[in-house]
Amino acid sequence: MIDLNCDLGESFGQYQLGQDEAIMKEVTSVNIACGFHAGDPDVMKKTVDMAITNHLNIGAHPGFPDLQGFGRRTIVMAASEIYNITLYQLGALSGFLKAKNYPLHHVKPHGALYNMASVNEAYALAIVQAIKDFNPVLKLYALSGSVLASVGEKHGLTVYHEVFADRTYQADGTLTPRTQANALIHDEKQAVEQVLGFIQQGKVRTVSGEWVSIKADTVCVHGDSSIALSLAKRLRQTIEQV
Amino acid sequence: MIDLNCDLGESFGQYQLGQDEAIMKEVTSVNIACGFHAGDPDVMKKTVDMAITNHLNIGAHPGFPDLQGFGRRTIVMAASEIYNITLYQLGALSGFLKAKNYPLHHVKPHGALYNMASVNEAYALAIVQAIKDFNPVLKLYALSGSVLASVGEKHGLTVYHEVFADRTYQADGTLTPRTQANALIHDEKQAVEQVLGFIQQGKVRTVSGEWVSIKADTVCVHGDSSIALSLAKRLRQTIEQV
Amino acid sequence: MIDLNCDLGESFGQYQLGQDEAIMKEVTSVNIACGFHAGDPDVMKKTVDMAITNHLNIGAHPGFPDLQGFGRRTIVMAASEIYNITLYQLGALSGFLKAKNYPLHHVKPHGALYNMASVNEAYALAIVQAIKDFNPVLKLYALSGSVLASVGEKHGLTVYHEVFADRTYQADGTLTPRTQANALIHDEKQAVEQVLGFIQQGKVRTVSGEWVSIKADTVCVHGDSSIALSLAKRLRQTIEQV
Amino acid sequence: MIDLNCDLGESFGQYQLGQDEAIMKEVTSVNIACGFHAGDPDVMKKTVDMAITNHLNIGAHPGFPDLQGFGRRTIVMAASEIYNITLYQLGALSGFLKAKNYPLHHVKPHGALYNMASVNEAYALAIVQAIKDFNPVLKLYALSGSVLASVGEKHGLTVYHEVFADRTYQADGTLTPRTQANALIHDEKQAVEQVLGFIQQGKVRTVSGEWVSIKADTVCVHGDSSIALSLAKRLRQTIEQV
Repeated sequence: MIDLNCDLGESFGQYQLGQDEAIMKEVTSVNIACGFHAGDPDVMKKTVDMAITNHLNIGAHPGFPDLQGFGRRTIVMAASEIYNITLYQLGALSGFLKAKNYPLHHVKPHGALYNMASVNEAYALAIVQAIKDFNPVLKLYALSGSVLASVGEKHGLTVYHEVFADRTYQADGTLTPRTQANALIHDEKQAVEQVLGFIQQGKVRTVSGEWVSIKADTVCVHGDSSIALSLAKRLRQTIEQV
Repeated sequence: MIDLNCDLGESFGQYQLGQDEAIMKEVTSVNIACGFHAGDPDVMKKTVDMAITNHLNIGAHPGFPDLQGFGRRTIVMAASEIYNITLYQLGALSGFLKAKNYPLHHVKPHGALYNMASVNEAYALAIVQAIKDFNPVLKLYALSGSVLASVGEKHGLTVYHEVFADRTYQADGTLTPRTQANALIHDEKQAVEQVLGFIQQGKVRTVSGEWVSIKADTVCVHGDSSIALSLAKRLRQTIEQV
Repeated sequence: MIDLNCDLGESFGQYQLGQDEAIMKEVTSVNIACGFHAGDPDVMKKTVDMAITNHLNIGAHPGFPDLQGFGRRTIVMAASEIYNITLYQLGALSGFLKAKNYPLHHVKPHGALYNMASVNEAYALAIVQAIKDFNPVLKLYALSGSVLASVGEKHGLTVYHEVFADRTYQADGTLTPRTQANALIHDEKQAVEQVLGFIQQGKVRTVSGEWVSIKADTVCVHGDSSIALSLAKRLRQTIEQV
Repeated sequence: MIDLNCDLGESFGQYQLGQDEAIMKEVTSVNIACGFHAGDPDVMKKTVDMAITNHLNIGAHPGFPDLQGFGRRTIVMAASEIYNITLYQLGALSGFLKAKNYPLHHVKPHGALYNMASVNEAYALAIVQAIKDFNPVLKLYALSGSVLASVGEKHGLTVYHEVFADRTYQADGTLTPRTQANALIHDEKQAVEQVLGFIQQGKVRTVSGEWVSIKADTVCVHGDSSIALSLAKRLRQTIEQV
């Protein structure tokens, strides 16, 4: 069965974000924010405990140190700085898992860090090296077909190629940028069909109409709207029936 | 031989603090800041690597999230918040050790957190519980005779009772508050004699003249002045000769 | 007509809090967060512009530098530090007003800063001095009958004694602490009656049943729930009809 | 007499940086950090008061919100975000000046913000607009010949074209990037001669040997080394004698 993952634990202090409790019933893996772009020690503790109760694969979701920008603003750092913020965040989240004797399963970079590592080899390598040094058994969740995915595989990590249910793809297999009007799929049925394509044919229909091959080990669903929750439920049912 | 410990890794970004490289040659244990009251991922990486090269006992030095106040301002938190910031920081520092397969040896709370846990049982318990849950083999460095020390022992942790070479003691065995003129010992010879008293007699001469018993497993030296470095050298020689 | 004030501009980055747009239609004064306990430059800009459009009295709402704790955790600072964080935040918010040639009307400390200044004279004086030095024409919104209110008056500031519609009062005229079960008034009718008591009789009925005198220049309403909005509407109507 | 400016107030909490007190005796203008890339309310208060005592031109020195990176790491923001962080920081610093009835004289962006605005028109415009909206009388300190300088002039600000005593220039009049070996002038005599060239001929000799014209209204000196202080003294003497 294909993996279904969701970014969670993105509340902060008084600020609530997402519907973590409900979405945890629908996914198989969660990526938990580590306090840099979102999350705080209290949120991390609560989210980790809830994910353990739900027997989910728990992943670290490290991001840039930019709470106001939610980790979505590019910060130009040296590769060594990327390595260090990754290692710091892997460690920090692991503290809460270690306290419960529950294993960390994977790592998925967040936001601008994810995007930069998808195309920049130096950044990809810094992240891969941090994961290897921390624990080489950890899975790397990376954009399907990205530089990060290939660097991870080259250095011996198990890579889960990540695809998106509610994003459209371009002819070259990359995601349509969010700046374009047709970047998002708002229709649940279409999203479900796209996921079926991933699973049954290993292909996706691009915005220009042709079908291209795509590796799909894990499907990302969003957790921050009621639509997302409804989509997650349908995707889970779909996946279970395939 | 009695343990000699020092707080290190307290630089931040462009800001340099302490003379970590020199002081590491003189002590047996280091307490490394975890990014909350001081330190950042780059400083932590560099400090951990340097401590490993010097074969030192490495401890986590968690503090309040208050870089401007250097962790010295009391922040009134719930015990659960104390537990969570401790666990977060233990994990974060451990990331850098795990990457080098080097064990974490101990935990010493910093500044206002250390002071509060010395007298407040709820705070002490939160810290002790976080350490136990993270790794019960870790040693707890706590103010000699404090509430933190007794709570740690009661819950099965190995506690190193910490004494100070350059601070004076009061008749009840507690440190003279820094607000008082005679809180600090500025004379190296007097500091060395106080340490000899700790080691050879298990006693300290208080400001009012009498001798009181005191447990002394580790002596704290400061690393942020040339005087401190000179004192550390003399203490090391003294300790080695005892 | 009595003033009706509300704390606003407490969103941060991606995190939305409160229903600022709706509540602005119901109140006469707003207290805008300054980026320390809540708010960021983008939120401040948006909130200030919206308040100007609604022709409201705009006040600065300075707090402790503690986003995670929402400024509700006591941080033990020196009086000079309190003075400086107050001045900094008054200046920062004023930047957005100055850009629109709109006057700053008042200052109301937030959360733990408000509570500490209500009883601690040194803290009260630091805040009062910062306001006087910045602009002595600014009004000070302070808990009715508090130390902050009297220190403000003693130093020549115009003080608006603040009362609460949805909090109960004790026999000595102070608020029932939130830790007690009967601290909050959940019944809209009761809240409206309490406000009528403030306005028409200058008195409040305490939890123990007697009526005590209370100065009431401004009533605080909360803006973070739909109940709050509904209460604000009723209070506005009530006040307009008196 | 040409203006001599220096970046100051870059300490933070326990962390000391620069030799502000000494350098203030040698310069005519200071650019004070506003708490985003360096400085904090206590440091700002102290630095402003010291600059007033020395009767200096006080400027705001806004930067990216990145204390760890000291404002030297590019953060990709929207122009509106640049506008808002500039306005916020101008206001915050102004608070400390307003408390002393001392005028703000100029604005000089810091680090990566300065560099980006030197070449990026949207960033330049955001900064210029924030200054104009805050107070159109403020001078803008900008890299001589930069996009920021020309945008400032186009929108009616008085621009001080800034030159550097200890940086080399390229054939096109731009600074040699710090990544190149010959970026810095380490020889005091050579630096003094370069400044004489700015003043007496309006020209600078580039690394490739030719002389190019350059506007020079203010010379930047650094304040963070004893060499810098010595150079500042010689520059001041040189300028006074011209």
